[in-house]
Amino acid sequence: MADQSQFARPGSTAEVEEGRALAPKFDADGLVTCVATDAQSGEVLMVAHMNAEALARTIATGDAWYFSRSRQRLWRKGETSGHAQHVVEMRIDCDQDAVWIKVEQAGAGACHTGRRSCFYRAVPLGKAGAVALEFRDEKAFDPKSVYRGS
Amino acid sequence: MADQSQFARPGSTAEVEEGRALAPKFDADGLVTCVATDAQSGEVLMVAHMNAEALARTIATGDAWYFSRSRQRLWRKGETSGHAQHVVEMRIDCDQDAVWIKVEQAGAGACHTGRRSCFYRAVPLGKAGAVALEFRDEKAFDPKSVYRGS
Repeated sequence: MADQSQFARPGSTAEVEEGRALAPKFDADGLVTCVATDAQSGEVLMVAHMNAEALARTIATGDAWYFSRSRQRLWRKGETSGHAQHVVEMRIDCDQDAVWIKVEQAGAGACHTGRRSCFYRAVPLGKAGAVALEFRDEKAFDPKSVYRGS
Repeated sequence: MADQSQFARPGSTAEVEEGRALAPKFDADGLVTCVATDAQSGEVLMVAHMNAEALARTIATGDAWYFSRSRQRLWRKGETSGHAQHVVEMRIDCDQDAVWIKVEQAGAGACHTGRRSCFYRAVPLGKAGAVALEFRDEKAFDPKSVYRGS
């Protein structure tokens, strides 16, 4: 697990919520949740995870770094696709277990399926039982050519 | 754990990513991540979790329901504070383990600390080592009076 000692350890609830120390509450897997939104449109582009090292690198460099749970490794967004994310602003939430980054998204999109946002399907409301998703975003690029090295 | 059989079970990667079936990938604790943004401003208000029952109730009613990990119970946002969230649109992400809801936030704010958003502190970028958070949002209401029943 990545070295968490580079951050303060979470103290009391009052310290975590009202303090000025960045003291992330990493979960049992050593991760915090990260929401990336488009700095211009406000659209949610993706939800991913950061371990201590990904968080430290993102803060230090202004490039979005994540930790892949499926691949169990650190990655810089765009390292394969070129679709990097430049972080304009980072926020942390009240209990310091979630981070919000506003990013300038390089390239045609953030999603590995070829869309701008990972949230390209809507869930219709007001229904119980089986739900048919509605597609809202066209593919913005061909993932086969962009991710061919991965 | 809440009954997940009311949703389709996740199939192949192609089905999960390109299909029309809502087949949420609940984690080992039976949860998906939910990001709530303000339908007008686009601001991220909070990040929380939904189990199958919370997700089903949110879809059926258009009110935001969550599952509290700390209290291990289902809750309707605003049931204590009155600060309910009316869901204008729901989206699900490529691998169906995260939900984005655009909400009309009732009352002065979403955060139990008294702010409009839980993300009221910025993390300055370009630094290594200890980081001092910067407060960005004033308190919008007095949490002691709003949450006194909780």
